[in-house]
Amino acid sequence: MLINEELPVAEVTLLQGQEDRYEGIIVAGDGLPDDPEEFSQRLDHSLKVWQEQERKGIWIKVPISKVGLVEVAVRKGFIFHHAEPNYVQITRWLPATESKLPANASHQVGVGCFVLNEDNHVLVVQEKNGPLKGRGVWKMVTGLVDAGEDINDAAEREVLEETGVKAKFAAVLALRQAHGFAFGKSDFFFVVALRPEPGQTELVMQEDELDAVAWMPLEEYAAVPFQSSRPILRQILDCCIAYAKGDYLGMTGMKLENGFKDRRDLLIHGEITRKSAL
Amino acid sequence: MLINEELPVAEVTLLQGQEDRYEGIIVAGDGLPDDPEEFSQRLDHSLKVWQEQERKGIWIKVPISKVGLVEVAVRKGFIFHHAEPNYVQITRWLPATESKLPANASHQVGVGCFVLNEDNHVLVVQEKNGPLKGRGVWKMVTGLVDAGEDINDAAEREVLEETGVKAKFAAVLALRQAHGFAFGKSDFFFVVALRPEPGQTELVMQEDELDAVAWMPLEEYAAVPFQSSRPILRQILDCCIAYAKGDYLGMTGMKLENGFKDRRDLLIHGEITRKSAL
Repeated sequence: MLINEELPVAEVTLLQGQEDRYEGIIVAGDGLPDDPEEFSQRLDHSLKVWQEQERKGIWIKVPISKVGLVEVAVRKGFIFHHAEPNYVQITRWLPATESKLPANASHQVGVGCFVLNEDNHVLVVQEKNGPLKGRGVWKMVTGLVDAGEDINDAAEREVLEETGVKAKFAAVLALRQAHGFAFGKSDFFFVVALRPEPGQTELVMQEDELDAVAWMPLEEYAAVPFQSSRPILRQILDCCIAYAKGDYLGMTGMKLENGFKDRRDLLIHGEITRKSAL
Repeated sequence: MLINEELPVAEVTLLQGQEDRYEGIIVAGDGLPDDPEEFSQRLDHSLKVWQEQERKGIWIKVPISKVGLVEVAVRKGFIFHHAEPNYVQITRWLPATESKLPANASHQVGVGCFVLNEDNHVLVVQEKNGPLKGRGVWKMVTGLVDAGEDINDAAEREVLEETGVKAKFAAVLALRQAHGFAFGKSDFFFVVALRPEPGQTELVMQEDELDAVAWMPLEEYAAVPFQSSRPILRQILDCCIAYAKGDYLGMTGMKLENGFKDRRDLLIHGEITRKSAL
């Protein structure tokens, strides 16, 4: 029996990876060994080969089922990049220069839904949880945009889920960027105007999240202190009122082909007075 | 010497944590023990106590120096939430119901900088790296918004870093939301109009990232096939041309007090025709 003898080099195989477009290597989670000791030897060998090849960023996506490998890689100079519930992505910049690896996602995105019916009544709710809990504050429906969801779709979904009202996206009225939100990340909040579909204004409250839901005259909504208590909310309210009065068209949202993968992306812009010719 | 005997319960102390506003517990990284076995015992004990207290979401921020603890927690039902270079945040939803924990950041944010001088010339560059490398394509300066950075500041920074031109934010011309970008995340791309400050138009190219930089007549810029090759880029170009011709004011960006922590947030909205009275 051999003791304290390393495996012959020939038996240590390179970790399976793909080149990326920036002279880096992406190691997929599927091909990772289960055993930390085997992983350690193959990672040493791979790092040596990649350094000879003058690779730059090395990425390893470690599935949660193989979480024990993370510690091994961290001991060899890897740091965290980002994580999702079922994996953590770790990375190491090989050159002696400053790392040029891109940061992970920096913003969460929320929507506020200004739903206006034909009588100029606004759809308002009182929240059951969070900072406004039990304070009886009437406000518009708000919610987080899901991963991969367009903001117009998110607004329609939130209104339907929380109030039972089927409403159609009409315009983006304003957006706000702020920092230092949940987990130290930044936040975009889009205020979206929606119009209820004919005959779809009956209220069905989501009991888990709300204490109350109602249609409220615009004048009454504008008089709620919460809507105007701070300069930024006051300006958003002004946008909503101007939109309701026909003095503001808001910003257009349209889905347009981007030329890749048959995808259509959401483009938002303000009102163009006339088509310009060059 | 006692062997195989558990520590007396009295010696196993609760992990130090704070309540959050959603009936959860946030365990800070500072107070975590270094030893995985001690952590394991204290986590078992803590989970029991928290379950009795009917806590909901449990959060543990594990610094990279204690990465060995992650595996212990994963074996006890924790999953990843998010990670930054020096820590990974893991989480467990204690109730038997579906988890209501918020998702981590979902979007990265980029800016495109439409810098127009007094002669209606556009600031253009050719990129040294990435998909346009070596293709001689003239385009506007683009870049990623840093964590915690407002988009107007990011646009001014990118223009200065890449071209040496000091330019001032003037308006947001358009924004685009798209999905399936880097690491499967979504992306906002803001097209921002800037005006160079008087006497600040001399070009100093960033050698690392660019092959060329120039001022190009608007007509010539509009004729570059890349700018109009796809519907979404064509529409963005139309916004830029209309802005240059005075047919489009773009969207206003203003910093406003939000009422918390003396913070001023960036609010963006379209042109309001007149101040509405209720």
